[in-house]
Amino acid sequence: MSARFFEDFQLGETWTSAPTPITAEEIVAFGRDFDPQPMHTDAELAASGPFGGLVASGWHIAALSMRVFVQGGGYGKTPMVGLGIDELRWRAPVRAGDILTVKREVAGLRRSASHPMHGIVRTQVTVSKQDGTVVMTFISAGRVPARERMEAA
Amino acid sequence: MSARFFEDFQLGETWTSAPTPITAEEIVAFGRDFDPQPMHTDAELAASGPFGGLVASGWHIAALSMRVFVQGGGYGKTPMVGLGIDELRWRAPVRAGDILTVKREVAGLRRSASHPMHGIVRTQVTVSKQDGTVVMTFISAGRVPARERMEAA
Repeated sequence: MSARFFEDFQLGETWTSAPTPITAEEIVAFGRDFDPQPMHTDAELAASGPFGGLVASGWHIAALSMRVFVQGGGYGKTPMVGLGIDELRWRAPVRAGDILTVKREVAGLRRSASHPMHGIVRTQVTVSKQDGTVVMTFISAGRVPARERMEAA
Repeated sequence: MSARFFEDFQLGETWTSAPTPITAEEIVAFGRDFDPQPMHTDAELAASGPFGGLVASGWHIAALSMRVFVQGGGYGKTPMVGLGIDELRWRAPVRAGDILTVKREVAGLRRSASHPMHGIVRTQVTVSKQDGTVVMTFISAGRVPARERMEAA
């Protein structure tokens, strides 16, 4: 993998992950570590909870979307620094046995005002499950190195 | 802990966590599981990375903010269903040995249009470290049960 620079990104380019299963063990492990509510940690108690069964923590799905992107090659060796997330929506529950696909689309490109050797890449992230249901969406902004210094306006 | 209902929430009420340390082991464990980039997984490689050393994944800090809230009692037994996150910003790096404090303030309260027995609670979340530097902020929206059914307008 080689590094990509800001100038290499194209508006509208997309990246799609391999289908990625999520297991009850993973849901419970993340729940115990980071979101210890019964709906995420205990299948029996979860049965009488708001989703009628065990569901993944929303933060688990967000973190998983990062994992599959990095493991899938991401933007190569480019050190992208995460700046923020906008409009994150958890749209449907994720249950053990679901198989998730993460799609990222470059939705915005601009030079950084504060870092003249960097640019800001905005990506629209969509996570779907095996039947096509969209389970989570968000917009991510990250700063990546540029090849050329921004010219003064 | 008893359950809280939508009618029990007050605009402006705040909750502050205990000071919570974060270790290199935790940073690397989360990085390996969910954000396997050298700046999160390998102190030696991280030294030549964008932060000059190991830093926590931004998703780790987001998940940690959930963990300390739930472990600290949260909203009691109320099953809050996360709907979304707005304006998440990673404002400063978090390094091994930092001690984090999470503050949540109720910033918005409205009845749910689609669920007449529920309300929507918006909270402003601020994570700071030991010297007062704000490292992350976001606005969270969640749906909680109400005592009384919403009257038809």
